[in-house]
Order: sequence, then C-alpha cells, then structure tokens
Amino acid sequence: MASTSLKLREAVAELFVVRASGYLQDAERQYPKWELSNKKLKNLLYEGLGGVILYGGNTSELKERCKTLQKWAKKQLLLCADIEEGLGQRFYGGSWLTPPLSIGEIFKSSPNEAIKLAEIYGRCTARQAKSCGLNWILGPVCDVNNNPENPVINVRAWGEDPKVVSKLISAYLKGLSNQKILSCAKHFPGHGDTNIDSHLELPILNHNINRLNKVELIPFKTAISENVDAVMTAHLLLKQIDKNNPATLSPIINTNILRNTLNFRGLIVTDALLMEAINHKYNSSQAAVMAFSAGADIILMPKNADNAINAICKAIDSGLIPIEKLETSLRRRRKALNKVKETIPEHFFQQKFLYFKKKEAKQDERFAHELISKSLVIHNKFRLRNTNSGINLIRIDSIFSSQCLNKASPSLNLPSLYGYKNMILHNEGISAWQNDLTNPLNLKSLGEGPILLQLFIRGRPFSGKINFKEPWINAVKQLQDINRLSGLIIYGNPYLWDKLLEVIEKHIPCAYSPGEMPEAQHQVLSSLFNNQDNNIHLNESFTD
Amino acid sequence: MASTSLKLREAVAELFVVRASGYLQDAERQYPKWELSNKKLKNLLYEGLGGVILYGGNTSELKERCKTLQKWAKKQLLLCADIEEGLGQRFYGGSWLTPPLSIGEIFKSSPNEAIKLAEIYGRCTARQAKSCGLNWILGPVCDVNNNPENPVINVRAWGEDPKVVSKLISAYLKGLSNQKILSCAKHFPGHGDTNIDSHLELPILNHNINRLNKVELIPFKTAISENVDAVMTAHLLLKQIDKNNPATLSPIINTNILRNTLNFRGLIVTDALLMEAINHKYNSSQAAVMAFSAGADIILMPKNADNAINAICKAIDSGLIPIEKLETSLRRRRKALNKVKETIPEHFFQQKFLYFKKKEAKQDERFAHELISKSLVIHNKFRLRNTNSGINLIRIDSIFSSQCLNKASPSLNLPSLYGYKNMILHNEGISAWQNDLTNPLNLKSLGEGPILLQLFIRGRPFSGKINFKEPWINAVKQLQDINRLSGLIIYGNPYLWDKLLEVIEKHIPCAYSPGEMPEAQHQVLSSLFNNQDNNIHLNESFTD
Repeated sequence: MASTSLKLREAVAELFVVRASGYLQDAERQYPKWELSNKKLKNLLYEGLGGVILYGGNTSELKERCKTLQKWAKKQLLLCADIEEGLGQRFYGGSWLTPPLSIGEIFKSSPNEAIKLAEIYGRCTARQAKSCGLNWILGPVCDVNNNPENPVINVRAWGEDPKVVSKLISAYLKGLSNQKILSCAKHFPGHGDTNIDSHLELPILNHNINRLNKVELIPFKTAISENVDAVMTAHLLLKQIDKNNPATLSPIINTNILRNTLNFRGLIVTDALLMEAINHKYNSSQAAVMAFSAGADIILMPKNADNAINAICKAIDSGLIPIEKLETSLRRRRKALNKVKETIPEHFFQQKFLYFKKKEAKQDERFAHELISKSLVIHNKFRLRNTNSGINLIRIDSIFSSQCLNKASPSLNLPSLYGYKNMILHNEGISAWQNDLTNPLNLKSLGEGPILLQLFIRGRPFSGKINFKEPWINAVKQLQDINRLSGLIIYGNPYLWDKLLEVIEKHIPCAYSPGEMPEAQHQVLSSLFNNQDNNIHLNESFTD
Repeated sequence: MASTSLKLREAVAELFVVRASGYLQDAERQYPKWELSNKKLKNLLYEGLGGVILYGGNTSELKERCKTLQKWAKKQLLLCADIEEGLGQRFYGGSWLTPPLSIGEIFKSSPNEAIKLAEIYGRCTARQAKSCGLNWILGPVCDVNNNPENPVINVRAWGEDPKVVSKLISAYLKGLSNQKILSCAKHFPGHGDTNIDSHLELPILNHNINRLNKVELIPFKTAISENVDAVMTAHLLLKQIDKNNPATLSPIINTNILRNTLNFRGLIVTDALLMEAINHKYNSSQAAVMAFSAGADIILMPKNADNAINAICKAIDSGLIPIEKLETSLRRRRKALNKVKETIPEHFFQQKFLYFKKKEAKQDERFAHELISKSLVIHNKFRLRNTNSGINLIRIDSIFSSQCLNKASPSLNLPSLYGYKNMILHNEGISAWQNDLTNPLNLKSLGEGPILLQLFIRGRPFSGKINFKEPWINAVKQLQDINRLSGLIIYGNPYLWDKLLEVIEKHIPCAYSPGEMPEAQHQVLSSLFNNQDNNIHLNESFTD
C-alpha cells in the first residue's frame, strides 16, 4: 500500500510546476516567499515533481540552474519561464524585446512587416530560451486588449483586434515551431477585457459564449489550429458561463469549451494558483483538486505544493477523481516532452558557460534594436537643450522591481550630461502629489528649474489599478501653464500617451516608446537631445 | 625592434591591474565606464596584462569569471577584490561580515575575544575568496580611524588606536596566512585622519614623520613584520613630507620611507589611479609613470590602461626609468604569485558551480551571525508596538548602490507586518528636509503617524562628506518633541549613534548595528518588535 501511495504521489507530482529563482543560491532569491529553497526543490524533485518555472538571474545562471534542476529530478522536467517579451525580460543577457503591442501597432500600417517581425520575435525568444535549457515558453499572450484600462495585460497583448492578434500569434508560433520548444496560449478564455488585476482580486466578466466566440476565443482557436502545445487558463469569473467557478476551476470552461468544443488536445495549465483571485477563496488543496477535476493537466505554482499534491492523491484514492484523468494528463505531458526531447543542443552539457553564438547574438541584438527604433515615436521636431538647473523627473512603479532603471541607465545618465538633476518618484518614496486637482504636483517638493518628465508606466501585475489614477494629464498641464515642462517621454502605456497628446503644447519635445529597456531610453533620449555620440560619456562614479 | 618593444610592453603590462565586473556579460556591468568589456579585457590579457580586480556578481559567477580571465591570459594572473568585509561584501553568496570597527569595539571590553574573531574573520574571507579563484585580498585596512569625520574609512578601520589596529590586523593576517592567499595593507602611510574623500578630491595632511611614527605607521610596521604581501598607497598629500606629490606618486613615501626605512620587501601597489584625488591633476600616463618611478610595483586601475602602459614603456625606452626597476617589480610580482600558485584547489577546474562545502558554509554563516549579534546594541528595554498608521522611514545613500536594501530586506518587510508603511529617503528622491534648523524635517511630506526611523549611514566612498551634514540629531529631537518618534535604529556609523544617544529620550526603543546586511536588520528588528518567530511571514508580492 505504502509503495502504491508513493507511486501515486510521484505520478501526481509530475503534473506540478513550482517556482524557483533563476539565481543559484538561496540567499540571492528576490522573492524568498514564493521561490522554493534549493533544499525544498531538491526534495520535491526527488519525490517526482515534474516542472519548474524560473524567474531572475542571468542567462548563464539560468543554464546552470536548468542543468542542476534536471540533475536533481528523476524524469525529464518541464522547464518554463514567463518570457513573453524575450528571454531578456526575465534573464540578464538575453534579448529584451519591445512588448507585443508594439508589433500590433506596426501591423496597423504595415501588416506584412508586423507578421514578419512577430515570427522573428518568436524565433529569437525560442532560440535563446532553448540554449539556456528551457523547454517551455509561457507565451504567446492570446488576449485581445480591448479595454484600455486593463491593469495587467495592456502592452503584453499583440493587439486590440482579434484578427490582428490571431495573425501575429500565428506568426510568433511559427517562429517557435522552427525551434522545437513548447508554447502556451494564455489566458483562456481571454483576459483582455478586465479592469482588475487578477493577481489582486477576481475579475468578473459578463460575456456569454456568443461574445467570446466573436472576440476572445478567436486567437485561441488560431493557436490551437497552429498546434500550440499548451493553453493557460485565466483567473476570471465569467458569470454567464459558470457562475460558481473562476475559469481556472471551471469544468465548463476547461472541459466543455476548451477540450470538447475547441477540441484542444494539448496541455491545459492553470495560471499561478497562489494569485489572490484564487487564493483569497480556495486554499492550495482545494484549488488544485478543483482545477485538476475541471480539466487542467498541469498545476502551476500552488501556494503549498505538498498540500496540493496530497490533496489530489486523496481525491484519486477516494474515487473523487478517476485514475484515468491522471493517466490522460500524464500521457499529454509526456507527449509534449517527447516533442522537445531531442532538441537540447548537444554541446549543452559540455559547454560550461553561455555566451550566445556570436552571429546569432548580433542578429538578435540588431532585431531588438530594430523593434525599438521602429516602435518609438518622436512626436515633433523640437529638441531638449542644455540647462544648468533642470530636473530629470522619472516616475517608476517601485525602486525594488524596476528592471528599467539602474545606475547605468541612459534615462538617468544622459539627461545629467545636459544639466538635469535626477529625481525619482516611486511607490516607496515621498509623494509628489498634493490635494489639488488642477495643480496636482507639489512643486515645492521638486525644487526650481525646467522639468524633463520621463514616465515609466505600463500594465504591470501587482501594481494595483493601472496608473491613470496618478493625475499625470493634469500634472502635464500644470507644468505647461507655468512654462516648466521642458520635455516629456512615456515608456510603456500607449493609451496614456494618446491622452497626453491631446493636451501637450506643440513646442514641447516629446516622445513615446513602448519598450522601457535601456536601449529604448538611449534611443529616445539621443533623439530628443540631438546626441550624435554613440559612446556617450556616462556620469558614473565607481565604488571604493 | 618591434619585437623588443612588444616584449617590453608585455613585461610592463604584467604590472597592471584593471577593473572588471564580476558579472559574466558586458550588458550586466554595473559600472560600464570603469569596467572593461570582455573584448577589451581579452585583448589586454592577450597583450600581457597581469591582473584584474573584480566587483559584483555572485560567487558562482566570480569563480567562472576567474577561470575565464585566467584562460585568456598568457601568465598567472593576480586576481583581487576589495573584500575587506568578507567575500559577501562584493559577491552574493559569500559571507558578508560586520565591518572591522565592530571588532575594534569588542576589543575594548574583550581583547582576547576580539583577536580571535579577527583571525576567524581573515580565515573565513580567505577561504571563500580562494575557493572562487581569487588569489589576492585587498585588505586589511591598516588605517587608524582617529577622525570621526572621516568620510571614507570610518567603520572600515579596525580601531581608533594604533595598538589595537596592530593587534587586530595581525590576527587577521594570521587567519589569511593559513589559507595562503595574498594580502594588502592599506592605505599607506595612513588614511585615518582625513575628513575628505580621496575618491572626490585630494586630502591634505599636516603630519610630519614623527607623528606618523607615533600613530599611523604602527599598524603598517606590524603588517610588514607579519609578512604582509603588499602595501597599497594612499592618495593623500602629506605636505610636511613631500609637498609636491601625493603619497601614491611620492618617491619619498614609497621608496625612502616604505621601502628603505620600513624595509618592506613585498609589492607596493597604488590605490586606483582613476580616483579624482589623482585624476583631476594627472592623466593616466603621467600618474602611472610617476607612481612607478616613485616606487610602486603594481599600477591599479588607471583611467586608460593602454596609455598608461605605453607611457611606462616610453619612460623605460628613453632611460627615464631604469630597466632594472621593471625587472625588480616583475620579480616581486612573481615571487608573490609563487606563494599562492599551489593553493588553487585541485577540484577548481572540474567543479562546475560553487556551493561552498556544507560544513564550512555553516561555520561561516554562524560566524557572520555571531559577529552581528555580538556587535549590535539594543539600547533599552522598550519595544516597538503594533500600529495601523506607522511610517517606516528608511534613510539610505542611494537607491542604486544600496546592497543593504532590496525587496526581500527585513528592514522593509518586518515593520510592515506591524503596521508600518515604507518610506525611503535617498539621494535621488524628493528631499524630506526644509530650511529650519530646529525643525529640519518637512513633516507634511511624510504624512501622519508614528515614525520608526532606520538610518543606514556609514563611511562610504563617493557619497560626499560624511552624512553628518543631514541634520539627523535635530530631526530626532523634532520628532521626539511632537511624540512621533516610535523607534530609532542606526546601521553603520558609531559616531552618529553616540551623538544620538545624547539626545534620545529614555523610553524610545532604539538600537545600533555596525553591520547593515539583511541578517543585521533581521536581528535588530526582531529584538525591537519582540518577534520570536524565526520564519517571519514577509509581506512580498510575486511577479506576474
């Protein structure tokens, strides 16, 4: 009996994916609450755990990490990452690409070019991911971003129109398929039309199946016809379809719609179960059992993996879930892995550290730069000038999760060459706002001098409602009225940019970039400052 | 001729140490201005460069980095780092130890214990450094911190009294000598009595040789008698000794005093030549030629290594510097390296990634924790309480070079469990100060509620004058007067702590820790909140 139970447990564990840091050492974990320690990981892998999702670190560490995790495991692992925007979105050294919506924007004027870019986008991401040891990309996002107030999808979507999204994700999947790496269409049945972040609470949608068929399901149907390997479910309550269960836990949505109606044969994977949309109501055991019975094959990031595994074992033991469901899910998982088995590069286990092959690295770099230059908007011919008393006012979400800003960032160092002093606004600092709708900025707190405003604002999980709540439109008006706005740059949210364009005065130098990475900052600021020098002297100090 | 010149150039290059990032990839460099690209490093090493100083990254990367650099080089390299406070001071995963002055403080009541701790301190640092591939520790600091206003030495010194410093650095060197790794006494002839940061400008001292003999030189003499391998010179002008040249460039100080009078036979190494104290007056070529003729054997971090190497070649070619000087310095360098040649662990080139040996890692961790608990001061019996409206006001130098603060830091996450909202003051943010000496804090900018004040303030290169300029003493009085100070913690500067003790009211919970690392924050805050739970639930979000 004990050995049967152990066998059952091992089989169930195979269907779980837990979160680990891409950094090698426990002490380096950025999110120790969510990222298991090496000891715990090793134990779970020994017990049969089937997959790991990785966050953070650099590409060399990632490669080493994948090798180590695979070594600790009894079976071939699913090794995945949320690299919707290129490997560099999560791992230093990889290509960090402009968000998908930038390609959706290019599609509007040059559809063929956009389709070509989307395919290269997929190929670049896949090639780099594979060479680091990942075998599963948690993308493409198939959501149609039809709600500008969406706090969590936004620029992550490939477009605002279902047909455009379909064409682009189809091209992206082609780029992936050449590289033989697993893919994942998300977030089923469509997370575009929400104004709530499911990381924080459960969004409720009123769409019926007709509406879904007309809009949200179209890209998923395309992805399925293109043989996408997995579909990730969303933590949304579609009350007209299943008023009791969020999509992730809904048999109607997983089994009836996705499996039976859309005839999807691949892996159904839950979104992270520890997100508040699920976690506030269901504990790890409940959520895992419900998701698995509803139709999910793979359980992603439960709050407590042990409890969740045990709960599914118990449900099978007691007959609540038929053993055949387990066998089917295992079969699907193995089938998916078979597809990528032979694709681990031969040199992978010899080569000690990863420096991408030079030719490919150059191609990828050119591509990343091309996306940035193609997608950025320099609004008019006016340029920024030298000053000796300027303020470089930068708005970011948080100083602690900002990938876009570090001491080497062009957004900090380039304006300082022209006399702008850095001042950074963020969630953990003194507020720059005052209680006055028409003059929302407390100018005293900022000091004297012309202000270059750089806003890093985009859809970002966990940052609360989309940041329209910060009254930037009125703030821009306020600064214009007193002639203190010397320039404006938006990185990220195109909807905010559109709104600001309605109020910005003609002579203000201004620009928009969907991407917020250092190279985007460099390109935007070099243009606005008319800086021709590619080797800009950066104003950096060194440590002792 | 050409080949002779190449030979000469190769020989001269052997005496140079340039700076590189500990991170593997160019894009990851934290200080791209000072840290050479891999291409440039490879070239210089191919041309004969003899050493590299490393900054940043984790211990696994460091190990890989040392191997790669050595592979690119034609000869055995000097591989060094500024790890005065343990390997973890610069490289994640290593032990980050409380600063040396904390042991100087323990010495006051328990000299024998302090001596024992200093020896373990050396051994722990050496063992970890060696296992990552470093062969040269740029320590111990032999400066006597006899000026509380010193902006750059401060807690980095082992004490305020030359005899105490001598005893402790002697013990530290013993710890090193067991591990066979090179050491470096710095900053000759003593950087303790300055109130200027030589990273920013040249400090001028009025001490004559009698005074130096009575105070500053004592620890250096001890270090020499303990066979320290190298001595690093300071960028200070001792106008009574050599009114024309800073110590680094002074033949009197290097050759007459250090080499002849003190009879030092090891390597003389300059401090980084690109520091402003030198750089504002001498370019790379001038500084290198002057330092080398003055007596230095090793030239550290010139602003432009190529120019500096060429300039010394030219000076030798033209007879300005005798070829014998070059030969002597080369001989000294090789002699030093001979000492550590056989100490590269055998497994070094097989073992792929570094997880410190378990037993030693545990020992080191215990030691690091012990130093923290031994050196922290919980001032009274009063404890912090729950609130629902508190402000956790944290003062750091800069958000961009803060090793003490990240999203997993106890200083942020522990108070938030007790109802304190984080607010971070830093150089790049909105100022909390107003122009009122007795009420220096602009309380409106901070909002309502009791304030827990955590000040991370210590001697830190490049942060300008020591931060006594920020009127924290008056700020504490101001908060006390209106009953809004709920607690006070100083991390770092003991002199500020002493001054605050004079004004702090008896019932305010307060504490001091010389160390600012996460474990120090954990220990201090657990005490002040009476938190018994070692697995504190940290209030962290996860990424999408």
